[in-house]
Amino acid sequence: MRIQKLDSRSKKNLLEDLLKRSPNQYGQYEEGVAKILSRIKEEGDNALFAYTEEFDHAKIDKNNIRVTEEEIREAYEQIDSGLVDIIREAMENIRVYHEKQKQYSWFDSKSDGTILGQKVTPLQRVGVYVPGGKAAYPSSVLMNVIPAKVAGVDEIVMTTPPGRDGKVTPTTLVAAHEAGVDVIYKAGGAQAIGALAYGTESIKRVDKIVGPGNIYVALAKKAVYGHVSIDAVAGPSEILVIADETANPRYVAADLLSQAEHDELASAILVTTSETLAEKVSEEVDRFLETLSRSEIIRKSLDNYGYILVAETMEDAIDIANEIASEHLEIQTKDPYNVMTKIRNAGAIFIGEYASEPLGDYFAGPNHVLPTNGTARFFSPLSVDDFIKKSSIIGYSREALEKIHTKIEAFAEAEHLTAHANSIKVRFEEQEG
Amino acid sequence: MRIQKLDSRSKKNLLEDLLKRSPNQYGQYEEGVAKILSRIKEEGDNALFAYTEEFDHAKIDKNNIRVTEEEIREAYEQIDSGLVDIIREAMENIRVYHEKQKQYSWFDSKSDGTILGQKVTPLQRVGVYVPGGKAAYPSSVLMNVIPAKVAGVDEIVMTTPPGRDGKVTPTTLVAAHEAGVDVIYKAGGAQAIGALAYGTESIKRVDKIVGPGNIYVALAKKAVYGHVSIDAVAGPSEILVIADETANPRYVAADLLSQAEHDELASAILVTTSETLAEKVSEEVDRFLETLSRSEIIRKSLDNYGYILVAETMEDAIDIANEIASEHLEIQTKDPYNVMTKIRNAGAIFIGEYASEPLGDYFAGPNHVLPTNGTARFFSPLSVDDFIKKSSIIGYSREALEKIHTKIEAFAEAEHLTAHANSIKVRFEEQEG
Repeated sequence: MRIQKLDSRSKKNLLEDLLKRSPNQYGQYEEGVAKILSRIKEEGDNALFAYTEEFDHAKIDKNNIRVTEEEIREAYEQIDSGLVDIIREAMENIRVYHEKQKQYSWFDSKSDGTILGQKVTPLQRVGVYVPGGKAAYPSSVLMNVIPAKVAGVDEIVMTTPPGRDGKVTPTTLVAAHEAGVDVIYKAGGAQAIGALAYGTESIKRVDKIVGPGNIYVALAKKAVYGHVSIDAVAGPSEILVIADETANPRYVAADLLSQAEHDELASAILVTTSETLAEKVSEEVDRFLETLSRSEIIRKSLDNYGYILVAETMEDAIDIANEIASEHLEIQTKDPYNVMTKIRNAGAIFIGEYASEPLGDYFAGPNHVLPTNGTARFFSPLSVDDFIKKSSIIGYSREALEKIHTKIEAFAEAEHLTAHANSIKVRFEEQEG
Repeated sequence: MRIQKLDSRSKKNLLEDLLKRSPNQYGQYEEGVAKILSRIKEEGDNALFAYTEEFDHAKIDKNNIRVTEEEIREAYEQIDSGLVDIIREAMENIRVYHEKQKQYSWFDSKSDGTILGQKVTPLQRVGVYVPGGKAAYPSSVLMNVIPAKVAGVDEIVMTTPPGRDGKVTPTTLVAAHEAGVDVIYKAGGAQAIGALAYGTESIKRVDKIVGPGNIYVALAKKAVYGHVSIDAVAGPSEILVIADETANPRYVAADLLSQAEHDELASAILVTTSETLAEKVSEEVDRFLETLSRSEIIRKSLDNYGYILVAETMEDAIDIANEIASEHLEIQTKDPYNVMTKIRNAGAIFIGEYASEPLGDYFAGPNHVLPTNGTARFFSPLSVDDFIKKSSIIGYSREALEKIHTKIEAFAEAEHLTAHANSIKVRFEEQEG
């Protein structure tokens, strides 16, 4: 891996490099996606089945679009029962963590009859998109479904593209069934997003769509945003490790590689105060590359977006970490919790040499759907919050309103909104008129 | 106002009518907005000042783009000191309510060395857009700034278009100063949004942009979304009143009108179980229309999007309210809290005959920036949550990881992510190898 001194020039280059990964120019696909969405909106199921035949080469109709209990049973037979046990244990950890995110309705009352509050309501229906084929990750199913489940969503529907044989990836079915998905539909791509957003004869409209997908899915989600809610449009993945001379170079190298294997746009960055560590990590990376099965992808992503930066001080290392706002941040230093207090921007913070990033991907409990590509400056991990919404509660008595009514009237009149003022005035006119 | 029986046909028509208000076809402006944004990104201040001259006909440069203390003093001299007192009192109510929304970092530890948590961090820099001229509402300044203040945002910057004389609306300045805005820039339109999103020599990039604006501002916000965060793109306003025979027809009529006066796209709907009330409200509306200053706007919005619906049962009334998912919902019935428990979808719920909607616009404390046009199905009022973000915290010891390491490895391998598995394995290789 390339080793550079962290200075203003290398910093500028690095930040510009990372921004190149941002999905900017997809204009060429937007029109096609818009057409698919509008056909789904107008023609419903007919369009959905036609697109499924065109893109997935599968014959799906209203009688077989729903995955049956029989198909789920078959899926269990096809996967290792040891994996099912692991999925269950991971699921329990994820559930326990997300339970702690639950927010509750509250109110505050005064003895004059004022009641102010905030009512928390789970979303009614949520759609989870799951990619098909090779890109199907059971861990991703769990991470998207369980927070919705914990939030108390009434109905969780899943859509996932069928293979040519009309079947769905068995690990997806098992993970969905374990996590408590209510219905699974065989539909993929922009057409599935359209069906979830607008509804068809077979698929009922949902309130929010979450889950990863290819560029068509991402653009379709963006297009229907506002009509329904969506999770953030995920970009390429990244890891940043802050380490000092106490870090284990072999662990650091292995963790950088675990992120770099995702795809060629993935970024793996080490920022260290130790030149010795920098060199040792680079050597370990080379050593691992000889044995890892996905070394080709890894080499490309490291060439493009892999960096080892040597910082003069820990403060400089922390500054650049905050500027990059990495999806995953590992802190492998003498006093990692001290460093953590200075981190403003990161999706998930892994602390100490045993908190390696894959622990968070699969098992620890916190969500692995995290803000990417610098958006940790303002976005949060997927959470129970994504599956609830709030309504303000305002209750007032005559006594409470009477004390302030002339002030509200004056404020409304200062804004020239006389009907606003009138709606307060009218409640006291008998008295005053 | 038109009175209709609530049945499946009138319901369908009404829902279709309301959707017409949705800002769908703005394609014609998008290109112009994209051009402004890209010039701001490339040319910074120069482009910003050129656009300000072109659109606002004001000469602004790097020496006068910031509102000075002197200008703020002048603004105070131009507005009624009584209004300042009212603003202060409203502000205190808003602050107290929003304080209750604060979320805190938490963690959970186990004696094996596991620490899982969630760190809450306020956004660093937030931009508040405030329209100029007639559309400048001091109440809107308070509602956008105070939640950011309560969240602990480091720096709140405001942009607002200057008049031809290079001055800014005095009530905006006073409200901004009272609410604690750090800097106010004289810039408006899509060019101001571009400056906040990308930064220029004079204006530093922010993490999130909030606040209302015209169609150019709305499209610019949508275009920069992802590069920064934004609040929801606000649509036209609406009120829905659920009332039974115990409601005061004069109050109900006045409240419907207070919403209808906003603009011609505003919608005011009464759903009642009482035919007598329906008729009386309609009469009161006519009576008020003779005296209200904005009766022309009100007539148009009532003609287009005003309805009185007579429902057979309270359950039917509640169902339609949940389908419409109104921005403002008033409940004026015998047992309003009972009705409230059945409301799923509404931005703010006003309970009882003294909780008239303008009370919430100005004074009660809850935010008046609410989800419009049916988006209360999945969006929430603007709140302190909009100005914070979260990072997951994952700390593990060797002991904690050792218990589960083979399971994580198996899960990663099931997903064919071998470098993920390797990053766990490497931590136990000495022991096992």
